[in-house]
Amino acid sequence: LARAEARAGIIPVAAVAAIVAKCRAELFDLAALGEAAAQAGNPAIPMVKALTALVEAEDGEAGRFVHWGATSQDAMDSGLVLQLKAALDGLDFDLRRLADLLAGLALRHRTTVLAGRTWLQQGPPVTFGLKAAGWMSAFDRHRNRLAEIRPRLLVLEFGGAVGTLASLDRSGLETASFLAEELGLGQPDLPWHAHRDRLVEIAATVGLVAGSLGKMARDISLLMQNEIGEAFEPSVPGRGGSSAMPHKRNPVGAAVALAAAARVPGLVSTMFSAMVQEHERGLGNWPAEWETLPEVFRLTGGALDQMILVVQGLEVDGERMAANLEVTRGLIHAAAVSQALANRLGAQRAHRLLEEACRRAIGESRHLRDVLLVDPAVLGLMSVSEIDRLFSPSAGCGLAAELVDRALARRGDGMGE
Amino acid sequence: LARAEARAGIIPVAAVAAIVAKCRAELFDLAALGEAAAQAGNPAIPMVKALTALVEAEDGEAGRFVHWGATSQDAMDSGLVLQLKAALDGLDFDLRRLADLLAGLALRHRTTVLAGRTWLQQGPPVTFGLKAAGWMSAFDRHRNRLAEIRPRLLVLEFGGAVGTLASLDRSGLETASFLAEELGLGQPDLPWHAHRDRLVEIAATVGLVAGSLGKMARDISLLMQNEIGEAFEPSVPGRGGSSAMPHKRNPVGAAVALAAAARVPGLVSTMFSAMVQEHERGLGNWPAEWETLPEVFRLTGGALDQMILVVQGLEVDGERMAANLEVTRGLIHAAAVSQALANRLGAQRAHRLLEEACRRAIGESRHLRDVLLVDPAVLGLMSVSEIDRLFSPSAGCGLAAELVDRALARRGDGMGE
Amino acid sequence: LARAEARAGIIPVAAVAAIVAKCRAELFDLAALGEAAAQAGNPAIPMVKALTALVEAEDGEAGRFVHWGATSQDAMDSGLVLQLKAALDGLDFDLRRLADLLAGLALRHRTTVLAGRTWLQQGPPVTFGLKAAGWMSAFDRHRNRLAEIRPRLLVLEFGGAVGTLASLDRSGLETASFLAEELGLGQPDLPWHAHRDRLVEIAATVGLVAGSLGKMARDISLLMQNEIGEAFEPSVPGRGGSSAMPHKRNPVGAAVALAAAARVPGLVSTMFSAMVQEHERGLGNWPAEWETLPEVFRLTGGALDQMILVVQGLEVDGERMAANLEVTRGLIHAAAVSQALANRLGAQRAHRLLEEACRRAIGESRHLRDVLLVDPAVLGLMSVSEIDRLFSPSAGCGLAAELVDRALARRGDGMGE
Amino acid sequence: LARAEARAGIIPVAAVAAIVAKCRAELFDLAALGEAAAQAGNPAIPMVKALTALVEAEDGEAGRFVHWGATSQDAMDSGLVLQLKAALDGLDFDLRRLADLLAGLALRHRTTVLAGRTWLQQGPPVTFGLKAAGWMSAFDRHRNRLAEIRPRLLVLEFGGAVGTLASLDRSGLETASFLAEELGLGQPDLPWHAHRDRLVEIAATVGLVAGSLGKMARDISLLMQNEIGEAFEPSVPGRGGSSAMPHKRNPVGAAVALAAAARVPGLVSTMFSAMVQEHERGLGNWPAEWETLPEVFRLTGGALDQMILVVQGLEVDGERMAANLEVTRGLIHAAAVSQALANRLGAQRAHRLLEEACRRAIGESRHLRDVLLVDPAVLGLMSVSEIDRLFSPSAGCGLAAELVDRALARRGDGMGE
Repeated sequence: LARAEARAGIIPVAAVAAIVAKCRAELFDLAALGEAAAQAGNPAIPMVKALTALVEAEDGEAGRFVHWGATSQDAMDSGLVLQLKAALDGLDFDLRRLADLLAGLALRHRTTVLAGRTWLQQGPPVTFGLKAAGWMSAFDRHRNRLAEIRPRLLVLEFGGAVGTLASLDRSGLETASFLAEELGLGQPDLPWHAHRDRLVEIAATVGLVAGSLGKMARDISLLMQNEIGEAFEPSVPGRGGSSAMPHKRNPVGAAVALAAAARVPGLVSTMFSAMVQEHERGLGNWPAEWETLPEVFRLTGGALDQMILVVQGLEVDGERMAANLEVTRGLIHAAAVSQALANRLGAQRAHRLLEEACRRAIGESRHLRDVLLVDPAVLGLMSVSEIDRLFSPSAGCGLAAELVDRALARRGDGMGE
Repeated sequence: LARAEARAGIIPVAAVAAIVAKCRAELFDLAALGEAAAQAGNPAIPMVKALTALVEAEDGEAGRFVHWGATSQDAMDSGLVLQLKAALDGLDFDLRRLADLLAGLALRHRTTVLAGRTWLQQGPPVTFGLKAAGWMSAFDRHRNRLAEIRPRLLVLEFGGAVGTLASLDRSGLETASFLAEELGLGQPDLPWHAHRDRLVEIAATVGLVAGSLGKMARDISLLMQNEIGEAFEPSVPGRGGSSAMPHKRNPVGAAVALAAAARVPGLVSTMFSAMVQEHERGLGNWPAEWETLPEVFRLTGGALDQMILVVQGLEVDGERMAANLEVTRGLIHAAAVSQALANRLGAQRAHRLLEEACRRAIGESRHLRDVLLVDPAVLGLMSVSEIDRLFSPSAGCGLAAELVDRALARRGDGMGE
Repeated sequence: LARAEARAGIIPVAAVAAIVAKCRAELFDLAALGEAAAQAGNPAIPMVKALTALVEAEDGEAGRFVHWGATSQDAMDSGLVLQLKAALDGLDFDLRRLADLLAGLALRHRTTVLAGRTWLQQGPPVTFGLKAAGWMSAFDRHRNRLAEIRPRLLVLEFGGAVGTLASLDRSGLETASFLAEELGLGQPDLPWHAHRDRLVEIAATVGLVAGSLGKMARDISLLMQNEIGEAFEPSVPGRGGSSAMPHKRNPVGAAVALAAAARVPGLVSTMFSAMVQEHERGLGNWPAEWETLPEVFRLTGGALDQMILVVQGLEVDGERMAANLEVTRGLIHAAAVSQALANRLGAQRAHRLLEEACRRAIGESRHLRDVLLVDPAVLGLMSVSEIDRLFSPSAGCGLAAELVDRALARRGDGMGE
Repeated sequence: LARAEARAGIIPVAAVAAIVAKCRAELFDLAALGEAAAQAGNPAIPMVKALTALVEAEDGEAGRFVHWGATSQDAMDSGLVLQLKAALDGLDFDLRRLADLLAGLALRHRTTVLAGRTWLQQGPPVTFGLKAAGWMSAFDRHRNRLAEIRPRLLVLEFGGAVGTLASLDRSGLETASFLAEELGLGQPDLPWHAHRDRLVEIAATVGLVAGSLGKMARDISLLMQNEIGEAFEPSVPGRGGSSAMPHKRNPVGAAVALAAAARVPGLVSTMFSAMVQEHERGLGNWPAEWETLPEVFRLTGGALDQMILVVQGLEVDGERMAANLEVTRGLIHAAAVSQALANRLGAQRAHRLLEEACRRAIGESRHLRDVLLVDPAVLGLMSVSEIDRLFSPSAGCGLAAELVDRALARRGDGMGE
C-alpha cells in the first residue's frame, strides 16, 4: 500500500522504505495481537496500531502514513485473497497429481472386471478402470472450475471506510490500480466489502472437491470390507492400527476424506447464510466467514493429501473381484439375458421370464445359467454359446474399456472436461 | 432415445413413430404415476411401464423397444438437464433484466448522497448510485458464472444400468452421440450416475443469486424503516397490507427474497452432503436431490421475480437521505477531518484529536463542525473553508460517482465482470 | 376464538354459532386461497377475508366479529401447534411400534453372533440382539424427548398485532386462557410471535429421529450387500425391483430412511438460521419456516413408516453371520488373545506378539489359531483349550447377551431411557 | 478406570496408585500427542501409549494395566461427557445471570412505551419491558431444556472394542457401574459408540441458545441505528471503535452474537449429518464431531458472555422511544381506531374507513388524528376524548405491563417455563 501510494504521489516516497521494513511477520507478537483483536472486533485494528508503533520508533514521519486511507476490511480482504491465491496454486497442483494417478489406475485396470453396484447391491459388471476414470474425470472438472474462478476471485479489495476511496482524493483509482499491480491481483470494477459472492463461490467450489473425495473414499472403503476385499488402502506401519485390535487395517485415508465430506457442507452453508450483509459492511456476518472459509480449505486440503496417498498405494485384488462376480450365482447377468431376449420377446415378456428364472435359481440355490440351460422357452430362442457369452463377465461390462480410452484420450488432448 | 437408436441401427426405424407419438405428457395419469413411484422407488419405472403400455396398445412390435438399453437414471438425469437448460435461460433473462434496472438506478442516482452504513451505524457518505452499482455488479457476475457452467452442466446422461452402455453393443457410443444431438445436449466424457458435482455446482451457483438478492433485500428493507425512510418498495394495491393494521406498507418483495436467502443455504448443503454416492448408484443420496434442487430454483426464481418488481418501482427519497446525514450532527465526517489532519499531525494524533472533539460534540449536543471551528488546535492547521468542505456531503463521498461511471462503462464494453 | 371471546364477553354470544358453522375446510376454495396468499404475503389474510364473507352472507352482524382482535400469526401459529399435537401423537405411536419390534428382535437374537464392525472392518464379535437393542434404545430416548417437549411446545399463540392483546382491553388474558382451553393447548407466559425456539426444538428433535433411522438403515443396507448377506429387507412384490435388472432386490426402505437422513440436517439448519427474527415479527425469516418444518415431519414420518416395515419383515441369516466370522481366518479374535496374554506379559508386549502372529497368518494364508498353536512363546503361557475358548465366537462376544437383557429389563420397568 | 477395575478385582489394587499418579495433564507433551494423533487416527492411541510409558518407567507391573479393557472411544467419549458436564454448569450459570438481568430490565421498563415493529415497519406500541421479558423467557426455557437433558447426556461410555465389554469377563457390568460412580456420571442402558443422539441433542439445544442470543442482538442493533437511537450497547473504552472512523460506536457485542447465530446452524447440521454411523463405530463421521461440537459451545459461550455485558450496561432512551412513536404521524394507531369502530361498523367497513383516512393523512402530510377529528363519519361514532384515548401510546400498548407482571410472577414462583 505504501509503495502504491507513493507512486500515486499520495504519501512521501521517503516513508515507503521505513514502512516496508516493518511489514515482517516475525516482528509481531501474535498472541498479543490475538487478544487485542478480541477486544477490537477485528485483527486489523491492533495490527495497524502495532505496525505504526514499530515504524514510528524508527521514523516518526513515516509512521503517519501507515495504512493510509485504508480500512480494516481492505487489509483483511486483500490479505485473504493473497492467501487464496497461494491456496489455489497448491490445490491445483494436488488435484492434478491425484487426477494423474487416477488416470494411471484407469489405464492399468481398463479391463479388470468387478461387479457394478447400485443401491449397494451387485448389478452387471464394470471395470475398475471405469471406476477410476469416473473419479479422475470429476477432479479434472474441479481443476477447470478453479481455473475459471481465478480471474473473478483474485482481485484487490480497496475502498476505504465505505468503499468510496474518500480519503484518497482524485488519485484513488490510480492508487488502487497501482496497489493491485503491487500485489499481483486483478482490479475489480467496484470495492466489494459487503458483496461476498466471490468468497462463497470459492468455498462452494472447494466443497465440490471435498464431495468428490468423499465419494471416492466411500467407494474404496466399501471395497475394502473384509467380506469384499477387492481394494485396499496401502499398509503403512503406524497407520490404521487399533489399540484394542492388533489385526486391524483401517481405511484411515478414507476416514479423513469422509470426515471432510461430512463437515464441509455445513461450513459452506454458513458462507451462503452470511451473504446477507447489511449496507456497506455487515453486522456479525463478516466475522462469520473468518474461521469458516479457511476451515473449508484446511479440511479439503487434508483430505486431498490423504487420498493421494491412498490412490498412490492402492492395492487392487483382481482375483477377488472376479470371485465376487460369482457371489450371486449368475444373477447379475440376468439383465443382459433379459435384454438379449427382449429383441425376440419384447422387453416386458423377457423381463418376466428372467424374473421367474431368478426366483427359481434363488429358491433352488442353483446358478442362473444352469436354470436357463434347461429352460425350453429359452433354448428355443438362444444357443448355448450365446448363453455362455451372456454370462461372461468381460462381455457383460459393455463399453467400459472404450469409455476409459475415450476419457483418457480427451484428457490427453486437453479436452478433458 | 428411439430416434437415436434407430439412427444407430439398434432398433427398427419402424418403431420410432409409434413411440414418439406417445411421448406426450397429457397422455399420462400423473397422480397414478406419483403413487406408483412411491412404491417403485423412482418415477421412471412406472413411467416407462405406462409408456410401454400405450405404445403396445397401438403397435405391439414397437412396444418392445421403449426405453431400450437405458436405465431409470438415464431418463431422469437427462430429463433434469433439459429442465435445467430451460431454467437457466429464464434465469439469465431475469438476471439481465434486474442488472439493467439496477444500472439505470445507478446512473440516475450516481450523485444522490446518503449515509454509508457499516455495522448498522452511519459512516461517511456514499451515493445511492454506488449502492445500486454494487448490487448490479453482483448480478452481472452471476450471469457470467451461469454462462461458464452451461457447457459443463448441459450434457447427456446415458449409460445403462451401471454406466457401461452394456446393452447397446458396439454402437453404444454412437447412439449416445446421436441422443445428445437429438436432445440438444453436450456429450460428457463418461456417464455420471454417481458423480453429481455438476448438479451441486448449479445448486450452489443459483444459491449465490439467492444470497445477493437477500443482501439487496436486507438493504432496501433497512432503508424503508419508518425512522429512516430513504427508499420504498413500490406501493401496489393488495400488496403489503395487514389485516390488523390498515396503515401498513410492508416490504413484501424483500420478505420473499429474505425467506429465499434463509432457506437456500440449507438446501444447498443437502446437495453437497448427497455427493457421497456409493459405487455406480448411491443408496438414498440420489433421491435426496430430487426435491432439493428444484426447490433451490423455485425459491431463487421467485425471489428474483419479486426483486425485479421492487427495483422497477423503487421510490427513492433523496431529501430524506440528505436529512438523515445530519442525524449525527456532523460526526460522520469525523473520519474525513481526521484524515485531513493526519497529513499534518500524523494519523494517531489526528485520530485522538477527533475522538476528543466527537466526545465534546456528543456531550454538549453540538454539531461537530461547530466544536472544531472554535478549537484553536484545529484552526491553526486548517482554514474555515477547508473545514466547510470536509463537512460537505458530496465532497465526503469521494469517488462514488467515478466508481459508478467506471462500472457502467465496463459493463457497456461487455467487460463487466 | 369466537367461543372464547363470547365467554369473555368480548363479542356477542349470538355471533358464535354463525361463525363456527363456517369454520369448515370444505367450504373454502383452496386453490384460490393459495393464489391470494402469494399476493397477500401470508395465507391467513385471504382466509379471514373468505371466512368473513361466508359468515356475513348468513349473518351480517356476526360477520363483524370474525378473527376479532387476532392477527394472522395468532391464527397460523396456533393452527400449527394443533397440527404438531396430532403429529406428535402419531410419531409417538410409530416410535413405540418400532421400538417394540426392535425389542422383539433383540430378544430373539440375543445370542446370534455376528462380526462387530468398526471403521467398516471386522472386529470382535457382537450379537445381532445387541445391535437391535442399540437401535431400540435410541428410539426409546426419542420418545422421552418428545414427551418432555410437549408441555413446552403445545401452547397457544395469541397476542394480537404486536403481542400486547391491545384490541381486547382488560379481558385479554382471560380470553387467552379460554381460548387455550377451547383448543386443548397450554398457556405460555407470553405471546411468542418472534421467539421461535419451541418450533426449532421440535424440528431438531424430530431430526434426531431421522438420524437414528438413517443409522439403522445404513447398518441394514450394509448387512444386505451380496457379499455379506446377513440380513435382508423383506421381499415384497413390486418393491425394490429394477427396470433394467430383473434379479434386483434393493433395500428400498433403507433408501427412504437414508434420503431422509440426508435431507433433514439442512432443513433443521434453516430452522436455526431463521431464529433471528426482528422485533415483534421478523422479515422473511417467519415464512422461511412454513415449508421447512412440515418437510422435516414429512420426511421423518415417511422414513419411520418404511423402517417399521423393514424391521417387521427383516430376514436374519444367522448361518451367514457365523460363516462371515471366519472370513479373516481368526484375526478378529486377535484382540481377545492379546488381552488374555496381557495379564501375563503386559499389554504392550502382548500386543506386539499378536501383531507379529497376525502378520504371519496373513502372509502364509493360515488361520491365526493355527499360527498360535505352534508358537512356543504362546504355548508356554496358555493351554490349547484356553486358545480354543478365545477363538469361540460366543465367548468372544462378551456381555452382549447380558447387556441386551439389562436393556430389555429396564425398558420393561419403564426405566428405559 | 484403574480404580474401578481394582474395586471389581480385575486389575491388582497395587497398580492403581502408580497409574493415577501419572494421569496429570502437565506430564504430557501436547504438541507431540497432536502430531501422533494425526498419524494414528485418534488422540487416544498416542495418549495411552505415552501414559503407559510414564507408568512403566516407575512401575513395570502397573504399566500392564493402563487402559485395561477399554477402547479409544471409551476414553474419548467419557472424557467428552465430563467436559460437557462442566460446560453445562457454566452455561446454566451464565444463562441464569442473563435471564435475571433481563428480568430486572423488564421490571424497570414495564411501562416504557416504544413502537412495536413487524416486518421492520412500525406497528402499534409495546413496552420495552415486554420486549425484555420476551428475551428473558426464551433463556429460561433454555435452562429448563438443559436441565432435562443432563441425566440423558451425562452418562458413561464404556464398552470395549465393539461395545460388549468382552475383555472384562463377568465383572464387566460391575466395573462399568464402579467407573460411572468414580466419574460422577450416570450409567446408560447400553454402550453408545455409534449412537450419537445425545451429543447431537446437546449441540442442538446449545444452538437454540445461540439463536435466541442472535435474535436479541438483532433487536438491539436495530434499536441502536443512528436514526432510531432507542437503546445502546454500553460504551466501553477500546470497544466498538473504528480505525478509520473516530466517532464510531459499534454494536460489538451484538456482532459477536450475530456471528455465532450465523455459524452455529451449519455446525449443528454437521452433527445431524454425522449421526449415520456404521455398525459398531462409524467411518469418518465420528471424527466429524470432534471439532464441531466444541465449536458450538465456544461460539455460543462467547456470545452469551458478550450479551451479558450488553444487557448489563444497556442504555435505554425512553424519550427517543416516545419521540419515534410520532414518526408516522399517528398512523400506528390506525389499527386501534379501526378496532374501536369495528364494534359499530363491522370489521371490514371500519378497516376501509381507516385505510382511506390513512391515505389522506399521508397524502396531505397531516396527523391521522387531525384527519379523523374532521371526518363526520367518524365523529358520528366516537367522541373526541375517545379518539384522544386511542392515540395515547400508553393506552395503545394494551396488556404489555400485565403480561410482564405475569411472566415475572410465574418466574418468581419457579413456574417460569
